[in-house]
Amino acid sequence: MQEHPHLEREFRYIPEKAKWKRQLCRIIYRADTPMGKLFDISLLILIFVSTFIVMMESVPSFDLKYHTIFVTLEIIISVIFTIEYVLRIVTIRNKKDYIFSFFGVIDFLAIVPFYLSLFFPVTKFFLIIRMLRMLRIFRILNLLDFMNDGFLIVKALKSSSRKIYIFLLFLMIFSVVVGSMMYMVEGHKAGFESIPQSIYWAVVTVTTVGYGDVSPTTPLGKFFAIVLMLAGYSIIAVPTGIVTAEMRNKRQNLEKTCPRCKNEDIDDDANYCKKCGESIVH
Amino acid sequence: MQEHPHLEREFRYIPEKAKWKRQLCRIIYRADTPMGKLFDISLLILIFVSTFIVMMESVPSFDLKYHTIFVTLEIIISVIFTIEYVLRIVTIRNKKDYIFSFFGVIDFLAIVPFYLSLFFPVTKFFLIIRMLRMLRIFRILNLLDFMNDGFLIVKALKSSSRKIYIFLLFLMIFSVVVGSMMYMVEGHKAGFESIPQSIYWAVVTVTTVGYGDVSPTTPLGKFFAIVLMLAGYSIIAVPTGIVTAEMRNKRQNLEKTCPRCKNEDIDDDANYCKKCGESIVH
Amino acid sequence: MQEHPHLEREFRYIPEKAKWKRQLCRIIYRADTPMGKLFDISLLILIFVSTFIVMMESVPSFDLKYHTIFVTLEIIISVIFTIEYVLRIVTIRNKKDYIFSFFGVIDFLAIVPFYLSLFFPVTKFFLIIRMLRMLRIFRILNLLDFMNDGFLIVKALKSSSRKIYIFLLFLMIFSVVVGSMMYMVEGHKAGFESIPQSIYWAVVTVTTVGYGDVSPTTPLGKFFAIVLMLAGYSIIAVPTGIVTAEMRNKRQNLEKTCPRCKNEDIDDDANYCKKCGESIVH
Amino acid sequence: MQEHPHLEREFRYIPEKAKWKRQLCRIIYRADTPMGKLFDISLLILIFVSTFIVMMESVPSFDLKYHTIFVTLEIIISVIFTIEYVLRIVTIRNKKDYIFSFFGVIDFLAIVPFYLSLFFPVTKFFLIIRMLRMLRIFRILNLLDFMNDGFLIVKALKSSSRKIYIFLLFLMIFSVVVGSMMYMVEGHKAGFESIPQSIYWAVVTVTTVGYGDVSPTTPLGKFFAIVLMLAGYSIIAVPTGIVTAEMRNKRQNLEKTCPRCKNEDIDDDANYCKKCGESIVH
Repeated sequence: MQEHPHLEREFRYIPEKAKWKRQLCRIIYRADTPMGKLFDISLLILIFVSTFIVMMESVPSFDLKYHTIFVTLEIIISVIFTIEYVLRIVTIRNKKDYIFSFFGVIDFLAIVPFYLSLFFPVTKFFLIIRMLRMLRIFRILNLLDFMNDGFLIVKALKSSSRKIYIFLLFLMIFSVVVGSMMYMVEGHKAGFESIPQSIYWAVVTVTTVGYGDVSPTTPLGKFFAIVLMLAGYSIIAVPTGIVTAEMRNKRQNLEKTCPRCKNEDIDDDANYCKKCGESIVH
Repeated sequence: MQEHPHLEREFRYIPEKAKWKRQLCRIIYRADTPMGKLFDISLLILIFVSTFIVMMESVPSFDLKYHTIFVTLEIIISVIFTIEYVLRIVTIRNKKDYIFSFFGVIDFLAIVPFYLSLFFPVTKFFLIIRMLRMLRIFRILNLLDFMNDGFLIVKALKSSSRKIYIFLLFLMIFSVVVGSMMYMVEGHKAGFESIPQSIYWAVVTVTTVGYGDVSPTTPLGKFFAIVLMLAGYSIIAVPTGIVTAEMRNKRQNLEKTCPRCKNEDIDDDANYCKKCGESIVH
Repeated sequence: MQEHPHLEREFRYIPEKAKWKRQLCRIIYRADTPMGKLFDISLLILIFVSTFIVMMESVPSFDLKYHTIFVTLEIIISVIFTIEYVLRIVTIRNKKDYIFSFFGVIDFLAIVPFYLSLFFPVTKFFLIIRMLRMLRIFRILNLLDFMNDGFLIVKALKSSSRKIYIFLLFLMIFSVVVGSMMYMVEGHKAGFESIPQSIYWAVVTVTTVGYGDVSPTTPLGKFFAIVLMLAGYSIIAVPTGIVTAEMRNKRQNLEKTCPRCKNEDIDDDANYCKKCGESIVH
Repeated sequence: MQEHPHLEREFRYIPEKAKWKRQLCRIIYRADTPMGKLFDISLLILIFVSTFIVMMESVPSFDLKYHTIFVTLEIIISVIFTIEYVLRIVTIRNKKDYIFSFFGVIDFLAIVPFYLSLFFPVTKFFLIIRMLRMLRIFRILNLLDFMNDGFLIVKALKSSSRKIYIFLLFLMIFSVVVGSMMYMVEGHKAGFESIPQSIYWAVVTVTTVGYGDVSPTTPLGKFFAIVLMLAGYSIIAVPTGIVTAEMRNKRQNLEKTCPRCKNEDIDDDANYCKKCGESIVH
């Protein structure tokens, strides 16, 4: 249980008492046995195959040629996913916790569209919800101990999330104001017919995407666009600065060791080493 | 008064002596009572509704359908805003300070176009000035204690603003020079008919926006564009570097604590802790 | 002489012995007298007016209307610039140093095209060289003590220039290789007719400019482009990382003070304070 | 051998015993003699000429004019490269190590297409593999002691590579999910005919490249694109943050010196100076 502290926090797996259920639960929910690893890797491959089929099916030329193959594979995968989902529920004691956990909901949504599509053909397109199962890769990578670096990113993003929200809020208001002004400046011409349209242009410009489907045509509009682009070019530094400062900080905390006893278990807010009392320089 | 030191600095609210005015002033200008919070949140919603209506009104198809609804809502909102503006003036003692403060001016500009539009139909479009009221969200967030992280960004931007101005000045001169050279290189062809036009292209390119409405067509022009793009790609590091270095610095200052007595009240330029005399490592 | 150490390093102004020349020299080359400041600011305005005229002259519709005004103003400015250039040479003792200094050459190139254009009409377009005089703004800002922050940027860029050159070299080779591969992949189709053309596309893509004048059309080409874009998106972090690390470092050095005696004159490579011997933590 | 520690690690050159072979080996593989430097620089020039010819040959108009010159030069260069390759093998004792080293394989691939093209005309296009020889520039720069700064970048990228892989993995899954949703939203219209096509659009947008060959046309699609662009604009901070934090860290390690004895040979994970036992503050 100790190896995956991050995991435990979000959902604690308590297997059923019956021995075969306990063994199966370990294979399904853990990766500390060869069978468990095999299960996780097979599942990963299956998820990618399933995603690939949904993608290919959407290409008309492929669908025309291999329609029957696609449909057959889809049925097989849906059945396997259903079995997996049922097993996940059966082998665990705290069933509700799993069903309403993040991955539990996605696992459910990934199989429902298939059964609905048997009765209502339109819903078949909702198979793309199945793609969200790809997020399970991060969970499996975590089980296989590949994610220490990933957690650093996630921790840095989490602790700077409020700053990023405020930045995005500012960016949105900025885009709305600039878009509206451009709507006046360009005189409701092509691409700037309405304020929402002009806001779309402002976002395309300020984020430096620049599709070019809408671009200013009047000299004043171009001058205005120049100002906006230079602003956007400077503004991009803000999220970068936020995340960089935070990531560097998180990194330092992870690396912090006591200079006297080399104790590595030091809290973020510690001023002294817990073990030897050595003062810690932040 | 203590909770919002940043606020106090920009504008100090001194309520009128009459009791009902004092109570109203507290509701309008502060958020430390349930009524005050309710007022701020209602105002926020109203501002967004007002912005939304101005946006929707600019879409021809929506305006055709819901013109009367839009006009009615606009009248209602304008009246409410007027009442709010009058109350703000009535309940405060230092009226001039409010009227000529940043938000005071915006509040005024947000209601004037409506009354003018009653006589001169053209000015109705100036209703988009009302969108600037959205900036009040930052003030309200501040009142509701959501803005500690925001101030860090603002502080970092302020203390690096001079560096950014110099950078923008350099970028502008760079664009003018490069644009002029491109005007010579591309031989006054499509999109490069004049120097201002070529400068527009240079800014679009160097900021990596790249609309594609103007792009080089001659081999020499393309070679030149390659050099400019590579330059722009390297130059983008400069504002990022400025803001990141500043943000990290500001962050450290905010976090600085005395290693001996854990005193957190340490000035930016302090070399020793005020309370215990411990030397502080920068 | 002490106030502008950065200035002195690049070019030392030794005025002529005659009193009126010495006084004039001080006005022209320095900004420590009211007359000197006035001279610098007037020159700045004149340079911008001159740049503005060259820009406006290139716009056909403006040139048609105001041709005579433009020509007159050009003659006046050229004459003033010539007088300034002559005075700069006359009032200074080390004439050669000025003439072959960076600004000396630009000052010369800014007036030559005008006199040549009297005889050979084509060379008139070389008036845009005059725009390079705008760079003098940085020199004047320096004289007026606005550039302390600017030097930080320049110092950071200089000390990371070698890293940036290596990065640009890598980027160029990367673009050449990727462009050539794309030339094979897209099968010499529109926009990828030759390897140089494909390299142009690779640079446009990897720098995230994305004009869209050339874009892949085949599925394989699009897949290839996706890989390139994701690479480019990650690569952009490299110059940013270089400059940020360097700028932060420069900033720390500028701020470094001895924790014991508060001595601020500490060399970059110092391990001990020069004055009190206190060890300095890097 | 000491001067190039990084070099030695990847491939150790042990020259043949015969004296002329030993001397030749030193010239070919090293740059510590005037002849060795001359050889390296000549090789560099030849590689660039060879790359330039392949590039120019692909331009139809140039090929038409100078076809014979190109072919002649190609034969000469191929022969020289062959001689070089043979000499590299002859003069070194551990032949297998060279042949299967990174540069050994590229050197081989650079000459093979020419000999194959004598029999099978199609393979001539594989001459562009020769461009990979340009990577040798980094090896030669290393030999000529230009690469200390380059290694810092490489070290920083290597130690942050796992974080970047996880980030790219996330970005890919994000693009697939967003692309699929856009396929639904835009209703299989122009540019969004299939999921792979929509994923292409998502990558173009999220990396801020924005060709504009595919862009949303429906209001809902545009709203969706705005959300995606704002997300992409914030996400770009992540790789930057990773590399910057790592580069700064590497830089500090390279600069780390013992505050007492000024010993510069300090390991990354050292807590005490090896020589005098002084504690080292991280």
